[in-house]
Amino acid sequence: MPHITLPEGMPGITGPFTYRPETAKPMRELAELLLRGPSTLTSGEREMIATFVSTRNDCEFCQLSHRAAAAHNLAGNYALVDAVRHDYTSAPISAKLKALLTIAGKVQQGGKQVSTADVDEARAQGATDIEIHDTVLIAAAFSMFNRYVDGLATWAPADPAFYRERGAMLAEQGYAASTLRR
Amino acid sequence: MPHITLPEGMPGITGPFTYRPETAKPMRELAELLLRGPSTLTSGEREMIATFVSTRNDCEFCQLSHRAAAAHNLAGNYALVDAVRHDYTSAPISAKLKALLTIAGKVQQGGKQVSTADVDEARAQGATDIEIHDTVLIAAAFSMFNRYVDGLATWAPADPAFYRERGAMLAEQGYAASTLRR
Repeated sequence: MPHITLPEGMPGITGPFTYRPETAKPMRELAELLLRGPSTLTSGEREMIATFVSTRNDCEFCQLSHRAAAAHNLAGNYALVDAVRHDYTSAPISAKLKALLTIAGKVQQGGKQVSTADVDEARAQGATDIEIHDTVLIAAAFSMFNRYVDGLATWAPADPAFYRERGAMLAEQGYAASTLRR
Repeated sequence: MPHITLPEGMPGITGPFTYRPETAKPMRELAELLLRGPSTLTSGEREMIATFVSTRNDCEFCQLSHRAAAAHNLAGNYALVDAVRHDYTSAPISAKLKALLTIAGKVQQGGKQVSTADVDEARAQGATDIEIHDTVLIAAAFSMFNRYVDGLATWAPADPAFYRERGAMLAEQGYAASTLRR
């Protein structure tokens, strides 16, 4: 049961977003920019970074929603997303994305964990400054979203179909206010 | 030295905010709403929560900037802000604010650390649902801001006068784009 009285029938972040639309607006805008805005990283890659951080933070609603959004962007390849979630170093992804995931994993622990060597490695694998910037900010932003969802003890649906539908909706329609209704 | 090439002479969060104005906009809006928007918590109380979380996250630029903003809101009472930073349980603040700081400290560690007992205590001390919500979100948002600032290895000025001026500016003019220039 959530720690405060949230709108009925609204799981995960949709409860507090509906409860407090003023703060939901900039949070939705930030997610939209980071995950679906113009970028040399694909939305599939960015959703995998979000999923990875949410998995490390053990946020069930976030990791399952973004896992499904990532898979939807990757032609339904849940196996790839799960490989990244559970051991990205052995996953069949680019060396650049692996290096960016290393940075994201450090940010999840704390900003100061990111080392010059981590950034040098990302750059050696072809990452640009803005890709490094956005990776840091995606990991930082999900350190917020995950804490928001779990700090209020919101509930996560058990039905896998919920996340498949939500992932498709997020991937296709995005994070703006009008698309976040169930 | 920052991990990526950021605008010269822009310390802390002002560097990445100038580098990437698209993402800065919603982040600034969120800070403005949470710290200076309509609330039954004073801006001084909310800035103390932000300072406390930033201190726990060991983010020098953030903790010194918000420490100064909090003190500016509290008639220059740096001693009170520092008492909250270092041991809020013995600080001369309300029992309600102490209970909210307990929740903020749990969110800083991870959303799932917040217990029903923590929330019951806050409510027993007079905290409302929206105050609990905003405390969780302030702590979650600073878990993002702190990681953003340190994950990019931005620099923090050593001169205490910088933070006094910045704190006064933030407290009086806020977090909107036009006020974040030095």
